[in-house]
Amino acid sequence: MDINDFVTTLDLHDIGKEMYGLISRLFPICRSITGNGFRETLDIIKEHIPLNVFEIPTGTQVFDWTVPKEWNIQDAYIKDSRGERIVDFRQSNLHVVSYSVPIKGRVSLAELKKHLFSLPDYPDRIPYRTSYYKEDWGFCLSHKQLLTLRDGDYEVCIDSSLKDGHLTYGECYIRGETEEEFLISCHVCHPSLCNDNLSGVALAIYLGKILGQLPVRYSYRFLFIPGTIGSITWLAGNEETAFRIKHGLVIVGVGDEGKITYKRSRRGNSVVDRAAEFFLRQSGEPFEIEAFSPYGYDERQFCSPGFNLPVGCFQRTPFGRYAEYHTSADNLQFVKPEKLADSLAKCLSIIHIVDSDITYLNTLPKCEPQLGKRGLYEQVGGDSQSKRLQLAMLWTLNLSDGENSLLEIAERSGLEFEIIKKAAALLSEQSLLEQTSRPKVTVRDGVS
Amino acid sequence: MDINDFVTTLDLHDIGKEMYGLISRLFPICRSITGNGFRETLDIIKEHIPLNVFEIPTGTQVFDWTVPKEWNIQDAYIKDSRGERIVDFRQSNLHVVSYSVPIKGRVSLAELKKHLFSLPDYPDRIPYRTSYYKEDWGFCLSHKQLLTLRDGDYEVCIDSSLKDGHLTYGECYIRGETEEEFLISCHVCHPSLCNDNLSGVALAIYLGKILGQLPVRYSYRFLFIPGTIGSITWLAGNEETAFRIKHGLVIVGVGDEGKITYKRSRRGNSVVDRAAEFFLRQSGEPFEIEAFSPYGYDERQFCSPGFNLPVGCFQRTPFGRYAEYHTSADNLQFVKPEKLADSLAKCLSIIHIVDSDITYLNTLPKCEPQLGKRGLYEQVGGDSQSKRLQLAMLWTLNLSDGENSLLEIAERSGLEFEIIKKAAALLSEQSLLEQTSRPKVTVRDGVS
Amino acid sequence: MDINDFVTTLDLHDIGKEMYGLISRLFPICRSITGNGFRETLDIIKEHIPLNVFEIPTGTQVFDWTVPKEWNIQDAYIKDSRGERIVDFRQSNLHVVSYSVPIKGRVSLAELKKHLFSLPDYPDRIPYRTSYYKEDWGFCLSHKQLLTLRDGDYEVCIDSSLKDGHLTYGECYIRGETEEEFLISCHVCHPSLCNDNLSGVALAIYLGKILGQLPVRYSYRFLFIPGTIGSITWLAGNEETAFRIKHGLVIVGVGDEGKITYKRSRRGNSVVDRAAEFFLRQSGEPFEIEAFSPYGYDERQFCSPGFNLPVGCFQRTPFGRYAEYHTSADNLQFVKPEKLADSLAKCLSIIHIVDSDITYLNTLPKCEPQLGKRGLYEQVGGDSQSKRLQLAMLWTLNLSDGENSLLEIAERSGLEFEIIKKAAALLSEQSLLEQTSRPKVTVRDGVS
Repeated sequence: MDINDFVTTLDLHDIGKEMYGLISRLFPICRSITGNGFRETLDIIKEHIPLNVFEIPTGTQVFDWTVPKEWNIQDAYIKDSRGERIVDFRQSNLHVVSYSVPIKGRVSLAELKKHLFSLPDYPDRIPYRTSYYKEDWGFCLSHKQLLTLRDGDYEVCIDSSLKDGHLTYGECYIRGETEEEFLISCHVCHPSLCNDNLSGVALAIYLGKILGQLPVRYSYRFLFIPGTIGSITWLAGNEETAFRIKHGLVIVGVGDEGKITYKRSRRGNSVVDRAAEFFLRQSGEPFEIEAFSPYGYDERQFCSPGFNLPVGCFQRTPFGRYAEYHTSADNLQFVKPEKLADSLAKCLSIIHIVDSDITYLNTLPKCEPQLGKRGLYEQVGGDSQSKRLQLAMLWTLNLSDGENSLLEIAERSGLEFEIIKKAAALLSEQSLLEQTSRPKVTVRDGVS
Repeated sequence: MDINDFVTTLDLHDIGKEMYGLISRLFPICRSITGNGFRETLDIIKEHIPLNVFEIPTGTQVFDWTVPKEWNIQDAYIKDSRGERIVDFRQSNLHVVSYSVPIKGRVSLAELKKHLFSLPDYPDRIPYRTSYYKEDWGFCLSHKQLLTLRDGDYEVCIDSSLKDGHLTYGECYIRGETEEEFLISCHVCHPSLCNDNLSGVALAIYLGKILGQLPVRYSYRFLFIPGTIGSITWLAGNEETAFRIKHGLVIVGVGDEGKITYKRSRRGNSVVDRAAEFFLRQSGEPFEIEAFSPYGYDERQFCSPGFNLPVGCFQRTPFGRYAEYHTSADNLQFVKPEKLADSLAKCLSIIHIVDSDITYLNTLPKCEPQLGKRGLYEQVGGDSQSKRLQLAMLWTLNLSDGENSLLEIAERSGLEFEIIKKAAALLSEQSLLEQTSRPKVTVRDGVS
Repeated sequence: MDINDFVTTLDLHDIGKEMYGLISRLFPICRSITGNGFRETLDIIKEHIPLNVFEIPTGTQVFDWTVPKEWNIQDAYIKDSRGERIVDFRQSNLHVVSYSVPIKGRVSLAELKKHLFSLPDYPDRIPYRTSYYKEDWGFCLSHKQLLTLRDGDYEVCIDSSLKDGHLTYGECYIRGETEEEFLISCHVCHPSLCNDNLSGVALAIYLGKILGQLPVRYSYRFLFIPGTIGSITWLAGNEETAFRIKHGLVIVGVGDEGKITYKRSRRGNSVVDRAAEFFLRQSGEPFEIEAFSPYGYDERQFCSPGFNLPVGCFQRTPFGRYAEYHTSADNLQFVKPEKLADSLAKCLSIIHIVDSDITYLNTLPKCEPQLGKRGLYEQVGGDSQSKRLQLAMLWTLNLSDGENSLLEIAERSGLEFEIIKKAAALLSEQSLLEQTSRPKVTVRDGVS
């Protein structure tokens, strides 16, 4: 059973519910780019897929950046003059600006307001705010609530710690036929937000579960990392072996109701870019292809000019184009089980094309081989399907001159990838094709 | 007189009638991929153009294929219980499945029906059927007639022979200035069918007659071969010298009322591809350009990856897109004299461009040469035409840096090929251009 | 202050009036491809910019051409039978065919008419005619006047001289940071015609005045030459050093009310071609981009295949597409001060892009550098503009791999060139970029 066969047997309703359940369990945890919330999340991921957890000490130099102090938080609140918690971390971890330094004391409303963040355009929502690289503290609250605050003194408390510790990330590695790698990366650094980024985390986990059970050509490396600093840290620590990554996807925002958006890698025409576009175009469903831009998620780092890895971004509605983005409205109501399942199936289909995109060589390239005497015209049943398979065999023979992979043959013929793949399998059985691109990986000494 | 001059003096009405007359004469002959009908056809072709006839023995290995047994047929019929010939080979040679093995005997209607073929969608037409590679027998008849058959016994007789013999084909070679070749190929293996393939045969014959009288740069090789096995046999026998083919056209289906369709070679941008598109675009008449696909006529073999010859396909309505295709309705009423003549003229025009597509080098490339002092501005009469010729001279001088042939200059300038060619001739007379691409052909020892 | 800063401070109203004033002063002079009118014009140009004047003797061989005799004229007329000057050179220097040989005598109307030129379609206009390379004489007059001429004898007088002398041209050289050159060329050989060519002359003079005051990367060479023979003469005399020209513009017809038309260089995608298209596209105003053709102005010589210099043509309505072209209607009413100023500003903007189009190398190409710690996120004020500058920094870092110049980054990002340039400057200050393309010019011995 290959990836595509698996997709066709997938019960989308069930798996969507499972993914949604996982998101619901991860939702309450207060994550940031470091700290125990991140570790707790990795522990839950570990229940689903094998995970190596790495701890990188504060202060480690990673290219132009430095691993920051570790942040943890127990409690936080604002109390009014009557001693009532009017803003309470226990109700929503979005209420505290991530990386807020500890504070405890009384402040006037005027002073307090300098540390309050709200969204006047969406008065019911709590915004999501961080202050990773500037030591400060703050609270987020709905604009509606902000407007109710009366003059007077308020008690503010943020029971957090910001001190030397570690940046934590998880890695899952699935060994395939070759040491060449397909990278799947998602950021795990957001607190109670669903689409950005728990939907991506859930999708990556399920990709790992599924690909771990199937025979795959590439080795798959999954990264569960904090955004930006996490990919920079990983690339700094794996600079020597990053060249093994032949394809990659950053996965994010895959639970909303929008159509699939694929953002190309910096190269613009890498195999994963072409596979995504080919699949989405043939899917018959609405989709969007975006050019690369150096703004977005961790593809910014993977596609920095010194690496230029062929890593695209698989998402539904891109960040900043839905009003729930980075607010308390990106919650369990916003993501839909059926959209999670749809994203999973489509992502698998794209991965399938990349994983199966072999280049063959026609062993009898002078004139057509006689297919009839090998029974290759009779292999097939129904009329129109039979004609298509015959056509697929002719295309595959004609273009298998060592220059064209199966994806290129599918693109040029206009036939589906699956029928080209089936044609190639039938022709290979008859020794009319032989594989040319069994990937050769040079492994350097001392590199695992 | 060059090819284009000849085209402008062609009496389309007369030549269309001549071509049609030739088709009428060839129509009754029962051809197949081997046998005496094929030989008889070549004998008639020989009346028009010099032809070398080749006989390749049954059993000869040609790449992945084997030359089949030779098939001949004298008579065939189905007689009803009253002894009347209700299906009679003498009335239409389409009535017998080509390559039917001999049979004589009585069969029940039920048994007979396993060997009968008709077209329910076109109840008046007899289909055309073959069984080259599976020994079997059968009759084709109109569906209307099939429905009239009553229960009872029928006498069936196919007085054919299928035994070791030869595959026959004809070759006409017209020596040009250079040993580089332009291939014209048509299949001659169909019985009484007009558009597919007698129209192509007639066009090829007339191309041969005309090109044989004119000064040509390339050597022209015409193949009159059975489809598929014929081109494979020819390529197998001429593997060493096939590299001389620099351009080629498969010609088929050129007598129907549809517009011209040009199917590109596998390379997609060979000179003949570009010449055809350029000419058709400037013709002002409807036309179609199709991408290469490995399905169709003998271009499948010439464009197989081991040869990848620059051979396109010149046709009117492509096979399978007209309902008369491979039925008794593809008859003398279906092809039109004026369409045959139009196809001939257009095909000659395309060949003309290829044959004249020389690359020159500007001998005074620094600044414009002074045309006035050489009388090159006065060479020309009427005003607008004079301006165009002057422009053509400037374009030809400017682009003749060794990178651009006349066709490329015509494409880039938007001027007609003829005026560019005329400009180049005038400039050459004044030694402002010299030819760079006088084709150099390496002839290997022992190759004629 | 760079070129773009200068453009933003330019008072278009004032400078348009100045340019128009200059044209008005140059208008009455009777120029041709040689002679005192040309010298007088250069004397006036010299009042505005430093100019080296070159005198090339008659008979000098310049590639395929020969420097012609020098032509001068004092007076010319046609007198009717009553002795009245009915056609008078002193009223319009267009009345005499340029390069007319001297003549004095009486001729019949029939004889005279062989030497008269008019425009039946525009009966009020005097045409502009030359006879440089065929010794002849002639008068131009309005068709209306031509129709009034009665039978009888006429006295004709052309008090001209055509004898060995010189071809004169002027050159202005502005030294920039590098010896690589930007060529600005205009023809100065037309008598009382405004758009073609005084508008181009005026624009070139103002470019020279402005660029002479500003720090520029390239060295700018301005040619004030007679059309065709002037550029051929210059190229013949500067064959060795012409390779220093990295960009160039022929400037002509920039005072009419039409939109800007940019005609590409023969290369089609040289930096100046791309800069012009990029600027005009972002300008939001109508414009036209034309492919190169070897017909037009001196770009024909600069783009001849032996030089193939990257020289485009900057103009408003191209020659031959306005009815005033080469007639007395191309006068001081036809050119507009505001269009002259608009042409100047746009031409400067294009030159600015070329002059600033540096290729940088990201010095920290692995992952993004941390912009925050360098204060690069705070450098900027307003919100949307700040976001755009941040985006511009990310694009510039991402694409500065040595393959992409600032123009390419602007093209790919869709951001304005100025914001990319600003981003590059900020990043350079922080040593995050270093310049790679500081142009290296090999200067041969003995070449000034």
